[in-house]
Amino acid sequence: MARLIEELRKLPGIGTKSAQRLAFHILRSGSEDADALSAAIRDVKAGLRLCSVCNNITDIDPCVYCASPTRNQRLVCVIEEPTNIATIEKTHAWNGVYHVLHGTLSPLHGVGPEHLRVSGLTERARHGELDEVILATSPTVEGEATASWLADLLRPSKVRLTRIATGVPAGSDIEYADEVTMTRALEGRRDL
Amino acid sequence: MARLIEELRKLPGIGTKSAQRLAFHILRSGSEDADALSAAIRDVKAGLRLCSVCNNITDIDPCVYCASPTRNQRLVCVIEEPTNIATIEKTHAWNGVYHVLHGTLSPLHGVGPEHLRVSGLTERARHGELDEVILATSPTVEGEATASWLADLLRPSKVRLTRIATGVPAGSDIEYADEVTMTRALEGRRDL
Repeated sequence: MARLIEELRKLPGIGTKSAQRLAFHILRSGSEDADALSAAIRDVKAGLRLCSVCNNITDIDPCVYCASPTRNQRLVCVIEEPTNIATIEKTHAWNGVYHVLHGTLSPLHGVGPEHLRVSGLTERARHGELDEVILATSPTVEGEATASWLADLLRPSKVRLTRIATGVPAGSDIEYADEVTMTRALEGRRDL
Repeated sequence: MARLIEELRKLPGIGTKSAQRLAFHILRSGSEDADALSAAIRDVKAGLRLCSVCNNITDIDPCVYCASPTRNQRLVCVIEEPTNIATIEKTHAWNGVYHVLHGTLSPLHGVGPEHLRVSGLTERARHGELDEVILATSPTVEGEATASWLADLLRPSKVRLTRIATGVPAGSDIEYADEVTMTRALEGRRDL
């Protein structure tokens, strides 16, 4: 019991109290529930890997996006983390594929270019396999630095490079926009 | 005293308790302070009017922006309320002038085209006095409807019409972007 509590405590957002509550819940629940949870935890590491094309977390390789015949494999949306795919899929506005960097440049945290997974992307760009690369890293300091570094890296391959729009979020009053966002909204204005 | 409390209570965000506290503060403060506040309140209505060019609230006509020789009078940023000028001035990214609509189209609240102040703007556009009109109403339902209606109104005058960018706000993670904002950020992507 103490071992289970100790293991549960290592999960993010779980303290000693929560770990005890979870452990007692598992103790009280049926054997098949406990076995199912145990098996699911074991299998998640065994069954999942990174897609060899886009670095998405997947149980089949290549992942569903890279293997899809209905998606445009020549349009790539570059994102920081696998979870960002959900954010973009929810829009139903993207029919290309993805490339997951697994991080952003952050010298303060010791993350340099060698820690990001980009070789697959630069290779495909160089071989003329891509029409457009959208840099969809966040408009944060790290995200902008990463986008700018990637743009420099990809520019020699002549692929079309784009960056997602920064501006006032939909549904929000410009009254609440900070200076940087408002500046970007003005600079990034589009013709009607 | 009761009359002062009653008058103060009419101000937004001021309840009975706050009104009493304000009234007692005025009572305790020096005569010159009370006179200055009283005069300031009286003069704000007497001295201020709307700029005859852009409808900004001003004590001189035309307002400082419309009278400025260093500002490009052929670039107009259309905004909903006079307070939006502060939001845009803070960016130091705008060297044109403004046009204040004093509201947005909102059929549910009975605000129709006849309630917005646009005639000065459409006149100047028609007479070829403008190079660009940026529609900087908020990306809300009412703001978008107003921008779209204004664009239709100004299109015959052949002035360049632009709309501020909608997208992920600066400094924010795309993880927190809602579907509509993320869709706009993708659609509004710009070439690098």
